[in-house]
Amino acid sequence: MSDRYRVAILGATGAVGTELIELLASRNFPLAELRLFASPKSAGTKLKFKGAEITVECVDDRSFEGIDIVLASAGGSTSKALAPQAVAAGAVVIDNSSAFRMRPDVPLVIPEVNPHAAAEHQGIIANPNCTTILMAVAIYPLHQVQPIQRVVAATYQSASGAGARAMAEVETQSRDILDGKTPQPEIFPYPLAFNLFPHNTPIDDRGYCEEEMKMVNETRKIFGTPDLRVTATCVRVPVLRAHSEAINLEFAAPFDPDKARAILAQAPGVKLVEDWSANYFPMPIDASGKDEVLVGRIRRDISHPNGLELWLCGDQIRKGAALNAVQIAELLVENNWLKRK
Amino acid sequence: MSDRYRVAILGATGAVGTELIELLASRNFPLAELRLFASPKSAGTKLKFKGAEITVECVDDRSFEGIDIVLASAGGSTSKALAPQAVAAGAVVIDNSSAFRMRPDVPLVIPEVNPHAAAEHQGIIANPNCTTILMAVAIYPLHQVQPIQRVVAATYQSASGAGARAMAEVETQSRDILDGKTPQPEIFPYPLAFNLFPHNTPIDDRGYCEEEMKMVNETRKIFGTPDLRVTATCVRVPVLRAHSEAINLEFAAPFDPDKARAILAQAPGVKLVEDWSANYFPMPIDASGKDEVLVGRIRRDISHPNGLELWLCGDQIRKGAALNAVQIAELLVENNWLKRK
Repeated sequence: MSDRYRVAILGATGAVGTELIELLASRNFPLAELRLFASPKSAGTKLKFKGAEITVECVDDRSFEGIDIVLASAGGSTSKALAPQAVAAGAVVIDNSSAFRMRPDVPLVIPEVNPHAAAEHQGIIANPNCTTILMAVAIYPLHQVQPIQRVVAATYQSASGAGARAMAEVETQSRDILDGKTPQPEIFPYPLAFNLFPHNTPIDDRGYCEEEMKMVNETRKIFGTPDLRVTATCVRVPVLRAHSEAINLEFAAPFDPDKARAILAQAPGVKLVEDWSANYFPMPIDASGKDEVLVGRIRRDISHPNGLELWLCGDQIRKGAALNAVQIAELLVENNWLKRK
Repeated sequence: MSDRYRVAILGATGAVGTELIELLASRNFPLAELRLFASPKSAGTKLKFKGAEITVECVDDRSFEGIDIVLASAGGSTSKALAPQAVAAGAVVIDNSSAFRMRPDVPLVIPEVNPHAAAEHQGIIANPNCTTILMAVAIYPLHQVQPIQRVVAATYQSASGAGARAMAEVETQSRDILDGKTPQPEIFPYPLAFNLFPHNTPIDDRGYCEEEMKMVNETRKIFGTPDLRVTATCVRVPVLRAHSEAINLEFAAPFDPDKARAILAQAPGVKLVEDWSANYFPMPIDASGKDEVLVGRIRRDISHPNGLELWLCGDQIRKGAALNAVQIAELLVENNWLKRK
């Protein structure tokens, strides 16, 4: 196997696609070739990559010939349609959609948490949901020291989770409201500017929305703890980029906050952000564009003898999506795991 | 005692003061006289009340002579300075600040929850913290049926909690960001437009901020359950008005969500807002200007056999402050509780 790789991005013009291109450049991923794919209406667009221009293409029957790695971020239906074709052509697909995440034959990987799962792929590796990645990176280091019994999460999710057009919608609505006009929701079901609402994904018969059940089920799969008790309330807030999460953890015995702090100060992918005297903790504007999940406000839960509270912010497009996918690609090439088992 | 009352508002020109004036008018409070007080820089301002104009005054030594009820909303230090003077002059002070809330001789009252506590006043009745009021109105009806064992709350608090100038700051910052300028924080320590941060109140040595400890201690006092286990994460979000809260409740036995729904559909001060098929639940824009606390997304907590999740929004200035104070005043006059015991 060569030490340079042919990579294709599906959904190259989207919010995550744009970030994937930037990360492959800034992290000097060992590329032999980079091909950019998007929907027909974006085909022909020229995108910059390390000073050169790459023309965005439509996918056809032969698009994946010779490709080593496909970074897919064009939505679940596109992934379902095209991943098998890419795998048949010999590529490994790192898929950012939810299409394959819970399939038993598809590893669900966060490189800081379960890198070795990636070795077991059979052509497809799934990138977890953004809120799940951010939470898992922050709490797994604690879980390794003392197993987590229960998680109660409440999220503060930015518009970016719904893509570049959703971010633009919040800006347009904000301007409309400031100008005394009525905001027009298009991407989101309700106005998000100066407002917020429970996450707009379909709700199951127990009353949990898809986003919440991703946090439950994906965390269990990634941690390898199928019985881990997790509940979540997922909420969209009028922040452009970076998600925040209030996380309440229960352990089987007390977890000293200072010990948690020391563990997280050393943890991969985590940056401890705590200035108690200035009341300065992770904020979306500080997490935006950053690789690390910012974690802070670590305190003993006064309502439970074995409880621990923490607060985190992370860039949902970056570590919550594009960066994690590129890290998986790096894991594959560094460990020679491209060949499927 | 006459059946019309002389009322004074302290802090008449603030966000809560403005709402107090509107509520006394719209609820036809039996007034013999309304006097409006504010800081020297607002004195002389004329404010409308039922078609008439009332001139805002400064407080002097004789301001409270003949006054029956003082609605105080001018901050803790003003309340501390002036409440004893008003009480000495024979008035009952309904105080919106945190100055007296935890004093054993001061009832802390939510009329829907503990109305009879108001009868025990010795001149001062405290209006609880806004987030506490909203939560208590929503969960007390459940607590009456089956005692709550533990509360895990995460809040989404609007700028209005910090007053009218804070609301204006978020608007100005939003416009600045949309125009490509750097937002200037003045009232808040960090930019709030398109951002959020843990609540900017002083933090105690356990890592809880004042706002969080108000939710803990005031809920215990109002419910009369000094050992109730409560934890909270309070967060400021870029919403102009109305707070939201994600509430996780634990009981000693399972609490059927349909039973909770039926109880809350009948509960005073609560409006059940749930359209599961449309993913429509309480939102700040719907709660703004409303008297009721909007409650919805009631679901069984899948992480705990006796857990229940719910979501609420309420107008922090109205039920969270001004309305609750006027309701206390109504309670006093209706029950002839103005005379202290």
